[in-house]
Amino acid sequence: MTRHADLRDLAVDDLRTSIRAGDYQGHTAGLAAGRLQVNLAIMPETYALDFFRFCQRNPRPCPLVGVTDTGDRMMRTLGHDLAIDTDAPAYAVYRDGDFVENRPNVSDLWRDDLVGFALGCSFTFEHAALAAGIPMRHIDCNRTVPMFRSNIQTVRAGSFGGGMVVSMRPVKPADVDQVRMISAEFPLAHGAPVHVGDPAAIGIADIGVPDYGEAVPFERDEIPVFWACGVTPQSAALSARLPLFISHRPGAMLITDVDERANPPVLDLTI
Amino acid sequence: MTRHADLRDLAVDDLRTSIRAGDYQGHTAGLAAGRLQVNLAIMPETYALDFFRFCQRNPRPCPLVGVTDTGDRMMRTLGHDLAIDTDAPAYAVYRDGDFVENRPNVSDLWRDDLVGFALGCSFTFEHAALAAGIPMRHIDCNRTVPMFRSNIQTVRAGSFGGGMVVSMRPVKPADVDQVRMISAEFPLAHGAPVHVGDPAAIGIADIGVPDYGEAVPFERDEIPVFWACGVTPQSAALSARLPLFISHRPGAMLITDVDERANPPVLDLTI
Repeated sequence: MTRHADLRDLAVDDLRTSIRAGDYQGHTAGLAAGRLQVNLAIMPETYALDFFRFCQRNPRPCPLVGVTDTGDRMMRTLGHDLAIDTDAPAYAVYRDGDFVENRPNVSDLWRDDLVGFALGCSFTFEHAALAAGIPMRHIDCNRTVPMFRSNIQTVRAGSFGGGMVVSMRPVKPADVDQVRMISAEFPLAHGAPVHVGDPAAIGIADIGVPDYGEAVPFERDEIPVFWACGVTPQSAALSARLPLFISHRPGAMLITDVDERANPPVLDLTI
Repeated sequence: MTRHADLRDLAVDDLRTSIRAGDYQGHTAGLAAGRLQVNLAIMPETYALDFFRFCQRNPRPCPLVGVTDTGDRMMRTLGHDLAIDTDAPAYAVYRDGDFVENRPNVSDLWRDDLVGFALGCSFTFEHAALAAGIPMRHIDCNRTVPMFRSNIQTVRAGSFGGGMVVSMRPVKPADVDQVRMISAEFPLAHGAPVHVGDPAAIGIADIGVPDYGEAVPFERDEIPVFWACGVTPQSAALSARLPLFISHRPGAMLITDVDERANPPVLDLTI
């Protein structure tokens, strides 16, 4: 099995070939530097209109950057040859509101009535924060960012609703204002933080036990800063008890062809 | 019948009461200063998913700022009491791809399967341009901005596609860079121009004969500057031959409660 370190220097086409072949099923932080990575939400067309509304009404956790035609496996506005059923390293499959399994691809599960949505991802602002000298602990630790189900309520659309999933990064108090400004510049990467400082205030009982991803250590004086997270749709789809809902495995994103600072849709893909 | 001049100083609530009562059916430029005005697109749910995709893929002409639940006449994320069937001054009704009639409201046509979409409008950037000292001729003339069907192709979604409708404003060459920068700051108000200078290059035969709105005079040396226009969905729905499609009458927009510089959805409507 290919390791993360083996892939760091690969161009996006080679990386995609490797992932499509099933050679790598891990997280994608730091891979294909500069390319937009996206969260995936795949569901039957019956639910797609309400999910579209859910994204429109909740742009912080669900910044929509692409959507397929019904039954089309290709995300055509984000890449030349970008297949949503094979090109994320790992998928999570949910049925009737329950997690069923992780899979390296979902080609066997594909149906002509499925619609795929791509949502922006926090990696974009993380790169900008790192460039400004603000450390990202989970990257230093080579872990998937810790994510928590919060009690911050989303705006309901049909059967989609419930609490927002948030990602957490330890930040020194002196850096909070800067990291807030930097992330606010990327509304398609979840934008500014939704909470700073007190996990209990947003319904998180234990900052050391994330619901998704992996815990990270705090350094002296650091405080937890929380951002809306693209795993929110997975949580919303669970509560909606969709008969079939497919996403990437948290942290193992779909890597697109487009620049991570672009504002999709990107229609001129001559890159 | 109430005239535009009678309404200029009304607060948004009083203005809406007057429009809802059918007292005013004209254009809304300059009314309820500072409030976001939006284009309307109302259609049966059967077409709503493709229309959503059309907006996502064509954000310049179709910057989506709100969408109703199916059958709900209220645009709840943009106002406390904002009814899409009565609160635009005038509506245009299309059936099977043909314009049928203008109406002061569409309450009698309402059906439980209709979905309403709100799209940003160029008034927002016009106000910013005026504040920067750049004149807007159609406002000086108290006319509806001239709009043209262009040959700039939209990105298709289902049955929605075809040429972009563009609005045109005469600008002095020395002001073009500034008006471009100002409008680019408002992506939800159509953003930067899509063409500068040559009507024929984008398929417009006669700049004096707009397809929608009213012609405006050019002053010496001014050149035509074109922006993507929120009437594009009307043109797309015509070519899609929807059995029923309802929009505002071009220029007679739906006036919302929210600040025109806000980035909808605006979820805290305590304004």
